[in-house]
Amino acid sequence: MLRKRHPPAGSKPGTLVIHESSQAPVIRIMKYNPNHLEEREDVKVSELTGLLESNMTCWIDVQGLGDEGMLRDIAAQFELHPLALEAVVNVPQRPKVETYDKHTLCITRMVMPNDIGMRPEQVSIFVGENYVLTFQERSGDVFDPIRKRIRNKGPIIMKEGPSYLSYALLDAIIDGYYPLLEKFGENLEALENRIVEEPTPDVLHEIHGIRRDLLTIRRSIWPQREAVNTLIRDENPMISETVRMYLRDCYDHCVQLMDGVETYRELSGGLMDVYLSSVGHRQNEVMKVLTVMASIFIPLTFLAGIYGMNFENMPELRARWAYPFLLAVMVVIAVGMIVFFRRKGWLGGTVGDSMSEQQRRRDP
Amino acid sequence: MLRKRHPPAGSKPGTLVIHESSQAPVIRIMKYNPNHLEEREDVKVSELTGLLESNMTCWIDVQGLGDEGMLRDIAAQFELHPLALEAVVNVPQRPKVETYDKHTLCITRMVMPNDIGMRPEQVSIFVGENYVLTFQERSGDVFDPIRKRIRNKGPIIMKEGPSYLSYALLDAIIDGYYPLLEKFGENLEALENRIVEEPTPDVLHEIHGIRRDLLTIRRSIWPQREAVNTLIRDENPMISETVRMYLRDCYDHCVQLMDGVETYRELSGGLMDVYLSSVGHRQNEVMKVLTVMASIFIPLTFLAGIYGMNFENMPELRARWAYPFLLAVMVVIAVGMIVFFRRKGWLGGTVGDSMSEQQRRRDP
Amino acid sequence: MLRKRHPPAGSKPGTLVIHESSQAPVIRIMKYNPNHLEEREDVKVSELTGLLESNMTCWIDVQGLGDEGMLRDIAAQFELHPLALEAVVNVPQRPKVETYDKHTLCITRMVMPNDIGMRPEQVSIFVGENYVLTFQERSGDVFDPIRKRIRNKGPIIMKEGPSYLSYALLDAIIDGYYPLLEKFGENLEALENRIVEEPTPDVLHEIHGIRRDLLTIRRSIWPQREAVNTLIRDENPMISETVRMYLRDCYDHCVQLMDGVETYRELSGGLMDVYLSSVGHRQNEVMKVLTVMASIFIPLTFLAGIYGMNFENMPELRARWAYPFLLAVMVVIAVGMIVFFRRKGWLGGTVGDSMSEQQRRRDP
Amino acid sequence: MLRKRHPPAGSKPGTLVIHESSQAPVIRIMKYNPNHLEEREDVKVSELTGLLESNMTCWIDVQGLGDEGMLRDIAAQFELHPLALEAVVNVPQRPKVETYDKHTLCITRMVMPNDIGMRPEQVSIFVGENYVLTFQERSGDVFDPIRKRIRNKGPIIMKEGPSYLSYALLDAIIDGYYPLLEKFGENLEALENRIVEEPTPDVLHEIHGIRRDLLTIRRSIWPQREAVNTLIRDENPMISETVRMYLRDCYDHCVQLMDGVETYRELSGGLMDVYLSSVGHRQNEVMKVLTVMASIFIPLTFLAGIYGMNFENMPELRARWAYPFLLAVMVVIAVGMIVFFRRKGWLGGTVGDSMSEQQRRRDP
Amino acid sequence: MLRKRHPPAGSKPGTLVIHESSQAPVIRIMKYNPNHLEEREDVKVSELTGLLESNMTCWIDVQGLGDEGMLRDIAAQFELHPLALEAVVNVPQRPKVETYDKHTLCITRMVMPNDIGMRPEQVSIFVGENYVLTFQERSGDVFDPIRKRIRNKGPIIMKEGPSYLSYALLDAIIDGYYPLLEKFGENLEALENRIVEEPTPDVLHEIHGIRRDLLTIRRSIWPQREAVNTLIRDENPMISETVRMYLRDCYDHCVQLMDGVETYRELSGGLMDVYLSSVGHRQNEVMKVLTVMASIFIPLTFLAGIYGMNFENMPELRARWAYPFLLAVMVVIAVGMIVFFRRKGWLGGTVGDSMSEQQRRRDP
Repeated sequence: MLRKRHPPAGSKPGTLVIHESSQAPVIRIMKYNPNHLEEREDVKVSELTGLLESNMTCWIDVQGLGDEGMLRDIAAQFELHPLALEAVVNVPQRPKVETYDKHTLCITRMVMPNDIGMRPEQVSIFVGENYVLTFQERSGDVFDPIRKRIRNKGPIIMKEGPSYLSYALLDAIIDGYYPLLEKFGENLEALENRIVEEPTPDVLHEIHGIRRDLLTIRRSIWPQREAVNTLIRDENPMISETVRMYLRDCYDHCVQLMDGVETYRELSGGLMDVYLSSVGHRQNEVMKVLTVMASIFIPLTFLAGIYGMNFENMPELRARWAYPFLLAVMVVIAVGMIVFFRRKGWLGGTVGDSMSEQQRRRDP
Repeated sequence: MLRKRHPPAGSKPGTLVIHESSQAPVIRIMKYNPNHLEEREDVKVSELTGLLESNMTCWIDVQGLGDEGMLRDIAAQFELHPLALEAVVNVPQRPKVETYDKHTLCITRMVMPNDIGMRPEQVSIFVGENYVLTFQERSGDVFDPIRKRIRNKGPIIMKEGPSYLSYALLDAIIDGYYPLLEKFGENLEALENRIVEEPTPDVLHEIHGIRRDLLTIRRSIWPQREAVNTLIRDENPMISETVRMYLRDCYDHCVQLMDGVETYRELSGGLMDVYLSSVGHRQNEVMKVLTVMASIFIPLTFLAGIYGMNFENMPELRARWAYPFLLAVMVVIAVGMIVFFRRKGWLGGTVGDSMSEQQRRRDP
Repeated sequence: MLRKRHPPAGSKPGTLVIHESSQAPVIRIMKYNPNHLEEREDVKVSELTGLLESNMTCWIDVQGLGDEGMLRDIAAQFELHPLALEAVVNVPQRPKVETYDKHTLCITRMVMPNDIGMRPEQVSIFVGENYVLTFQERSGDVFDPIRKRIRNKGPIIMKEGPSYLSYALLDAIIDGYYPLLEKFGENLEALENRIVEEPTPDVLHEIHGIRRDLLTIRRSIWPQREAVNTLIRDENPMISETVRMYLRDCYDHCVQLMDGVETYRELSGGLMDVYLSSVGHRQNEVMKVLTVMASIFIPLTFLAGIYGMNFENMPELRARWAYPFLLAVMVVIAVGMIVFFRRKGWLGGTVGDSMSEQQRRRDP
Repeated sequence: MLRKRHPPAGSKPGTLVIHESSQAPVIRIMKYNPNHLEEREDVKVSELTGLLESNMTCWIDVQGLGDEGMLRDIAAQFELHPLALEAVVNVPQRPKVETYDKHTLCITRMVMPNDIGMRPEQVSIFVGENYVLTFQERSGDVFDPIRKRIRNKGPIIMKEGPSYLSYALLDAIIDGYYPLLEKFGENLEALENRIVEEPTPDVLHEIHGIRRDLLTIRRSIWPQREAVNTLIRDENPMISETVRMYLRDCYDHCVQLMDGVETYRELSGGLMDVYLSSVGHRQNEVMKVLTVMASIFIPLTFLAGIYGMNFENMPELRARWAYPFLLAVMVVIAVGMIVFFRRKGWLGGTVGDSMSEQQRRRDP
Repeated sequence: MLRKRHPPAGSKPGTLVIHESSQAPVIRIMKYNPNHLEEREDVKVSELTGLLESNMTCWIDVQGLGDEGMLRDIAAQFELHPLALEAVVNVPQRPKVETYDKHTLCITRMVMPNDIGMRPEQVSIFVGENYVLTFQERSGDVFDPIRKRIRNKGPIIMKEGPSYLSYALLDAIIDGYYPLLEKFGENLEALENRIVEEPTPDVLHEIHGIRRDLLTIRRSIWPQREAVNTLIRDENPMISETVRMYLRDCYDHCVQLMDGVETYRELSGGLMDVYLSSVGHRQNEVMKVLTVMASIFIPLTFLAGIYGMNFENMPELRARWAYPFLLAVMVVIAVGMIVFFRRKGWLGGTVGDSMSEQQRRRDP
């Protein structure tokens, strides 16, 4: 959860922590203007020289954080501040916007649509005058539609430069949370049905899991919302006025996602109450069966015990109609008990009724 | 709940998502000034040209969002921003106010008085210099009284133009929540009575359902309140000073509705506690019956078992008064038990008493 | 709870809703300056003309809201805004302060000292240059001490005019909440005692009722506090500097009342926990009795059952000391069980001890 | 809790409510400058004349609020505002700072170190140009160390005048809360131990009591914190720059106390959960014993019952080894049951083990 | 928890409380500039003279607070305010920043990586023009990496002087919380597993302990965050512009830690629910076994009891096939019961199934 790759306390700021399992960085470049498009994969760091002077918009996408030397070389090329590079490499950082002299850094957290286990990936976006530089933890992202729009020479994306490109990336990341949240909604609905049918304790475990995942999502979206707001409000030279309007839309999406997360959190809390009450009700039903059985048969068994005694002087034993009479008395007692419990509403029949009644109420 | 019709992540902003089940748009126009009223249904898009230059107040009401081409044509007529059109079509959006150069967009959420299942409908209101343009998801709305007031040439509505008309629509939408909230109040009262009489688990399901619906309403009203506040505070040229005063009244209604929602949420939480406690009390009652029955008869059965044994040397068996004496002992034991339980207050009689006492306390 | 007398959604603003059961309005006037006092009851609307030009302070008190024509006539006399009149008649409104050109409207909620069922009554106070105009829902109010102070020509009330009079009314309304809150305190104390003695489920019902009433009070006082604050802060020409200082005192009372309400809410929540735990403890006691009885006698009954069997070859049956020996074994088993349960602390004696010990702890 | 001595609603502001049980006021004066010290007890009101003109620092300490005339005389001497006097006498008021022309009033709440039952006493401190005037409800306070420092002619207290003296009083009052809070901490620790050993319901009562007392303390400290903050921030001519720095220290103490109160509140809430769970665990243990006993012996008793039947044609009864064989079967059943319950972990032995294991875990 | 070493209420401000068990102070000095490094341990107070005039950066580190005279001597050397010295000695204080004329005091709380029992230690950092003066409660700290960086003449630490050194200390203290928080995460995961396997009540005790420790950490980090923010925002001459940027990084760490603490608090709350529900489920299982056993055998025992009676006139007893027929009836009843309970899902088999099903669900 908090397993931040952080250097030991007291280290020099800017110390990078490279995890052994990290993927080696792979660089992809898209360079375009309304007339021209150049796309290259597996670029070497040395080939990056001169990009800053190009009059085309460049998107340098670095996937993988596993090679300190290479990362430092890239940082040198783009004159990244040591603390900025630290924030890129020592993931996860809290989403935020940091403004430097020559570029703005936007730390975000991306979820993949098929994300099981909820380990969001950090995407760091640097926006410079004529470039966007992104760092991802692993290959695989939600940016393919944007690459397609660039290849198709979408009119706005061509015209508005790095400022719009960074918005498009941010927007794609945030929109990527919608399918995830919808899945939570479906899970909660499914759980609600299961609670009615068979309230086993693993239901609670699943609710607990959903709540934990919602916490994680909230911790991703909430600061992202703040970060977008910072981009909108602050007089950031990297963000054009047109893009600012699009960011407002992006901000609204964040707020809507937060709304959804909060709603699901409250719903899951409510489900927990419903679950606990269902369990309690079932326990009550078990108790009623036990009580009814015991209350009917214990007195009867006692009566049978009486006449099983071996006293010599028990005149009833010899009476002709004593046995059938006793049987009749037992039937009367049993029926009386059943009537008593029926009036209390403890008998299975009533339970069945109330269950079907419940069905009727829910599906009118 | 969150099923927003949103385009896949990374799409171009302004991409519209038309659901197949959406109703085809139908356009109605009301055009009026104090002297004149013109009302037309099923208007074609091409007939909208020239409306912007009219010196009458026009209300163009579009019901249904099922035809992308037609919506884009309307947007072109009124020069709507692509993001504004996206907000209109990709429902539901969070209620908000957006100011553009030539018009103000107000996204609201409307509930129908007979709304079962709580799926509010989005109404988007554009206020321009001489027109109000509304988009609804489906036909059917709460605006009939306003149409009537226009037909009756109500003095204020005639005089104050689009600014007042948009207020009237907003006010009708917000007032539409009152009957809904009243229904919640009645449901909660009914539930409280049912909890006393028969606390079945479907009561909890219903409370859970009410809480979910209240959450939905809160998520509708809260941002609506903010939106109205924005209209009041910001120096919006589309809103006249007179209308601003009416909006303050509208704002008060939002606050009052929020108050109501919060109150009902707290009450429903309290009901849940009362329910759980009632269930616990009933379980306790079941336990007491079981305990009383078992405690009285188990020792007696044991005694009977003793004298049912077949030992040869059991002198009591032959004693003349042994049997009646044993019966007497058994009666003494049973009575002693009953007295013990009565003093503990576990016997049915006491329960009945405390129930009636409870009635007395509640209905003095 | 929220049963606002509101007109159907979409109605013209300013539409009044007169409930049939409303009382017909009765007008009382007190007109005074340091030298003169004139008091009249059952005044006709036509007699109000000229009051505005009087150089005396006038208090026009309208009790009852049951006659639309009469209310509109009064509104015309004092040039009340249609929305102001709507707020007066369509009760309940949220307490608030609204400033108009010629007067300030202060909506408040009054409770009567002997208020059962917690239906506060709305009092609307208009403060003009030389008059105070109040509207009440019903006859009967907390203003008698103020009327007496006017009749006694109290020095401040004579000198400071309508501004001070409106403060005095407001202060009386707010001070009227103290006895109510004290009653809640007493009820909670009484409940705490009852929970110890006999935790019946109606205790929870009463706690639920108290919480609901506290919610209602909070919803009355909280906005009243804001309203008083508005009067203090805003540069309101109707409120003199001297009166502003008195209002600060009034504001402190509101804060203190809110404090009290919140405290009682937390205490009642705590009581609910104590109640639930008491019930659980009693259930545990029932269980222990059952377990002790069953655990002692079930094995003994089994033993008796063994020697009640009719096998031909059961040598023990013929042994001379078998019967007394078995009885001895049974006694040993029973005593062993009792010792075991006593050491576990499950026996009635210990329960009684712990109860008395509990008493001792509480009353040292 | 809220039993404010307040006059009936509608009374003239400034009305004093003297409780019969109030102590008659006793006046003590300390008058000092670096060279001189004069201390007098039981001073008469008339002797106060001229104090305001003295060039020494005067501390007039009034203990007891039981004589309206005397209090009004003192108020006249120091030109106290009627509302200020009301705040002094009609205790308890919310702690606050009020600034008047010639003095500043600081209402505070003092607890005595040995305060049982948590009835804090109101101390009202007026700071004028050359005097400090304090009113206490009862004799007995936490100011003795300050009196001693004056008698010892402590350098700062001599030099800084009334401004520093009022700080010293305030600081003593706030520091007086520390021992109280420490006692709460000890009580909570003691309770935690008792919950493990014997979770009786009076534990919950004590937790409830602690929570109530913490609420009371919070309601005392929270506004006191605000009051101190007001003294620091506002440009109050009665507070010198040097003293302002000391007040910052005093403010930090308030914040630390609030921290402590909140921590204890959360801890007590957690203890309640632990208690409820301990009770549930014990109940479970009772249930297990019952189930084990019943499940073992009920089937055996049934078997014995079978062979206690009197059918003529029961061949087993005559078999030579039937009885020992049946006994063997019974042993097998009993052992099977015991193995089954042992594997489920329901047997007493395991419970004892888990208890001791728990001990081991806690005390490593 | 709150055991502040505070002087008795009413003491002179600046009174120091020296605990007997406190360690005697030991002074270490590091004096350096880019060219020079001087390091001395066990320095005497008298040797500190002249340090203030040195043109090197000095770090004076005082470990131990057990000697009032020595502490006062140091305070005199550096002209510390009496209240500042009080804050240093009377630990624990709330973390805060206080600005004095010649230095800034930063009170922080340090945890050691292997901190069992959660007793954080207060570190007070004074930053002057050419020195940093730190006070620690005990020897042993997290500063060794910083000492190493000084000895290695790290370029930034050499260049930026006391301002950077104080940042480095602060950063080391805050980073020291990460390992602690990670340990909490591991403990919570371990607890979650144990809850599934064996929900004993000591699990709840451990959760309670974790929550208490998280409270303590929160109370440490929250004000530390504020303190860092104060350093960043206020125009503090002791903090250079370069260092301000590093402090922003430090601030982000505080926020991230708070995020982690809050997440763990919510998770532990959720675990408590899961625990309680597991216990409830187990209790239910116990109940079901009891009910099934009792419900099957009690009726059968009753039947056996009937034919164990000694009536003379019981014709069934003599019927040839009566005994086998009765046995068959008993089997039918037993099988019927088992089918009934199986359909209700109460039988052990189903429980086992649902357990394994649960396993399957969790590990797909």
